[in-house]
Amino acid sequence: MPRVVDHEQRRQELTQHVWALIRSSGIAGVTMRGLSEQSGWSSGAIRHYLPNRQSILTFAAEQLGAEVERYLHSLPQEGTPLQHLEAFLLALLPLDERSTVWMEVWLAFAVAAVRGEAYAESHGLLYADLHKALSSVLDEFKQHGWLPDLTPEQAATELHGLIDGLGVHLLLRQVTPDQARQTVRRALLQMLTGPNAQCAEC
Amino acid sequence: MPRVVDHEQRRQELTQHVWALIRSSGIAGVTMRGLSEQSGWSSGAIRHYLPNRQSILTFAAEQLGAEVERYLHSLPQEGTPLQHLEAFLLALLPLDERSTVWMEVWLAFAVAAVRGEAYAESHGLLYADLHKALSSVLDEFKQHGWLPDLTPEQAATELHGLIDGLGVHLLLRQVTPDQARQTVRRALLQMLTGPNAQCAEC
Repeated sequence: MPRVVDHEQRRQELTQHVWALIRSSGIAGVTMRGLSEQSGWSSGAIRHYLPNRQSILTFAAEQLGAEVERYLHSLPQEGTPLQHLEAFLLALLPLDERSTVWMEVWLAFAVAAVRGEAYAESHGLLYADLHKALSSVLDEFKQHGWLPDLTPEQAATELHGLIDGLGVHLLLRQVTPDQARQTVRRALLQMLTGPNAQCAEC
Repeated sequence: MPRVVDHEQRRQELTQHVWALIRSSGIAGVTMRGLSEQSGWSSGAIRHYLPNRQSILTFAAEQLGAEVERYLHSLPQEGTPLQHLEAFLLALLPLDERSTVWMEVWLAFAVAAVRGEAYAESHGLLYADLHKALSSVLDEFKQHGWLPDLTPEQAATELHGLIDGLGVHLLLRQVTPDQARQTVRRALLQMLTGPNAQCAEC
């Protein structure tokens, strides 16, 4: 079905242009005209895939969620559970070009959501999806006695807050990649202790 | 000098209008015309105090930093050092109308800074001022043996990240005020331990 594949590929191409527009001008900058200028596509060609501004933004949000999820699933499962959780959290920080794009687009959708525009929130993209994934992983740690002081829900709220705050500070270039990595590592080591490793320094 | 006082008061009034405009439309929405519509002031009257867009945004950023600093200094000094640090951190979260305005304006300036517009960053507002204040407070804890595992700088980076992430999650209404308060309290209790209170549960 070559035409269907092509259709999907063209929509993916368009997504990159929408993200670039969001990064440079925010959600408010996403208009049919702006996207036409950014992409070099005619308005008619864009409308063939995404008929209006609402569908452009909804698609851009969906694609962001889908791409982050694909990436998280592609992380190698090797190492200890703690190393795996650490890799999961670091993948969400803007530490390379790809994740910087994600974080900037996420931030723009978050600001729009604060102002009451719900393009991304309705997809769980801004908080719910990741919070659920984190809680689920932390529940495993809890069941194995590695999360002595907190419920999985409490630990997820804390780590999620830390990651998104560090993400913004990285985008602002106020925290270095190394500082961010080490902060995540220390927070995990403080929160999660093997059943026989508690108070090892006492 | 009644005219000087009036001048300052009029600029303060204008600040409220600029902040309201930033909250509803972002930094991009701040134009002389938009501010005239928002405030009911003529462009001429606005220009008497703030001659152009750049001066409007710079003033709005300066006033935000000054108001937050005044508020932090007004916090009662009673209670333990830990209670005081907790109150300091909670004052930065959007838990009431006033601090919600601060956080939304802060977030708008942060997004502008990520895009390379440096209205607020040059004033230290987005990160540097608070980070310095936090590091200084945490240095006191360190000197008294209450910060066993981290340097003041490391602890400030972690708490600052947590606060700003929770702040965004509060604005997104994905975390409740109670969840945010308890998360801050637990993070502090985990990080800071009295010299004789370490491993109290061992």
